[in-house]
Amino acid sequence: MRARAPASAANLGPGFDTLAVAVDRYVEVEVEPASKLIVRSEGEGAGTADDPFHLAARVAIDVAGTERLSITVRSQVPVARGLGSSAALAVAAAAAAGAKDPLAVAARTDGHADNAAASTVGGLVAAARIHGGIHAVRLPLDISLAFVAIVPSVGLSTARARQVLPNEVSRDSAAFNLSRLALLLAGLADSRLLVPEATEDRLHQDYRSPLFPAAPKLMSSMSQAGALAVCWSGAGPTLLGICAGSETSAVEAAATVALADTGLAGDVLVLHPDMHGLLVDRDGSSPGLDVDGFGAPA
Amino acid sequence: MRARAPASAANLGPGFDTLAVAVDRYVEVEVEPASKLIVRSEGEGAGTADDPFHLAARVAIDVAGTERLSITVRSQVPVARGLGSSAALAVAAAAAAGAKDPLAVAARTDGHADNAAASTVGGLVAAARIHGGIHAVRLPLDISLAFVAIVPSVGLSTARARQVLPNEVSRDSAAFNLSRLALLLAGLADSRLLVPEATEDRLHQDYRSPLFPAAPKLMSSMSQAGALAVCWSGAGPTLLGICAGSETSAVEAAATVALADTGLAGDVLVLHPDMHGLLVDRDGSSPGLDVDGFGAPA
Repeated sequence: MRARAPASAANLGPGFDTLAVAVDRYVEVEVEPASKLIVRSEGEGAGTADDPFHLAARVAIDVAGTERLSITVRSQVPVARGLGSSAALAVAAAAAAGAKDPLAVAARTDGHADNAAASTVGGLVAAARIHGGIHAVRLPLDISLAFVAIVPSVGLSTARARQVLPNEVSRDSAAFNLSRLALLLAGLADSRLLVPEATEDRLHQDYRSPLFPAAPKLMSSMSQAGALAVCWSGAGPTLLGICAGSETSAVEAAATVALADTGLAGDVLVLHPDMHGLLVDRDGSSPGLDVDGFGAPA
Repeated sequence: MRARAPASAANLGPGFDTLAVAVDRYVEVEVEPASKLIVRSEGEGAGTADDPFHLAARVAIDVAGTERLSITVRSQVPVARGLGSSAALAVAAAAAAGAKDPLAVAARTDGHADNAAASTVGGLVAAARIHGGIHAVRLPLDISLAFVAIVPSVGLSTARARQVLPNEVSRDSAAFNLSRLALLLAGLADSRLLVPEATEDRLHQDYRSPLFPAAPKLMSSMSQAGALAVCWSGAGPTLLGICAGSETSAVEAAATVALADTGLAGDVLVLHPDMHGLLVDRDGSSPGLDVDGFGAPA
């Protein structure tokens, strides 16, 4: 069986551990019966951990209850950059192995419920843990929005990005993020309402800046070029400029110049919302999984 | 000049200091030039502080720049019960005195930006402080929702209700409220998505329960009778059952019984969303300010 799941950008500023949007880069996983475990990977992350410790193998074995599987992973999603690659991989692997609830499997294995929810449902999604399960709810998204992503070549582990966060925050900071989340949801539903302050955050972004000191300057370059709002993607280091369609090219150009100015290696991607989420091809005949350029990641 | 503003229910569980919904109980304020200050009040709150210290007088004098005013207040909104009476009064008084930005005046004078935003804009509103001002944004609201309100006869001062809150909260609690706020906004936009967990909160409600020990039991009675979700209204003591239209009568009946069981005096009201917000009648001829039964509060 074959399944495809989109990458995602979580948090989006104030929506810490809650909000994520699915974007049009994909992970495809194929799982077939075999005489022993075979793991192959192509594209992003290829060749790293092609063994039972590969996340796709762990998930598929968990779901199928056997190691006698042939698993093929094709990924367009850069690893450990804050674009939800492991959540997308876990969702796709769980579905390709026949899981009835791929989101639950992925959230349990990978731990990122917000990313996993977006990879499963598509579009803009909020994930809440209720009674140990994941409750995902889709929220309105203005599909004219585009996301310019500055993706540095060096990854940042989510675990390390989480260690720098304080365990206690002020009540005012908690309320501040609530107000910004409400502004952000209004603005993502209708880009005419999106104000720069909608992505302000007091729970994680500022604490993570020392891990990526160039972040404020890079975000500022996108704001100045016309991005409606800017934020970290997940735990970073990817940075996002949320753009109305018409501003996207100018923001992309400014981000490219700003990244070059820092001397850091990396890419600037233009991402669009994915509204499909997880797609599963049960009999291998669906053309629905194919996307332009898939199998030949840039 | 005459102005009318609706009452409002703020916080709604997770939306602490951010979210409020306008409901169909009203405060009307009339301000006319006079040889000296005259303050008259009718309905809820009548006769308390009919002098320059009356909130309507303070706001109107501030806006008009003179004390030579005749001010008449007619209110259907119980005072100090968590239904935004002072914010509605401040918004209506500011507008009736000719303020260009009644929301800014009200937020400055009364301090409850969330209530004031709902009283001004109507419907479901989020308020965020940006650069010292109030940015109000309207959010989608399923107008088939009704709010059963248990309103105890004894008020609870917002200041006292705020003193019991901790200044520091865990990062997990802050994230918990973010996830619930997202669920709540999805459920208030479409009642079919409203789940009981959407009004869960870790920032204020539990801390306030000792001020109103019957609250959990009263809320539970409304849940059991079919309310989709239950929460405090503002800083309390009013409690809300958020209901699909069809369940409202059953929830109202259960709330009435449960309130009687506690031995506390009070009322059970059925409130509906107000989608108009502030209305201003510049030449005294508009019938738009009149509502059924207005001027003769229950």
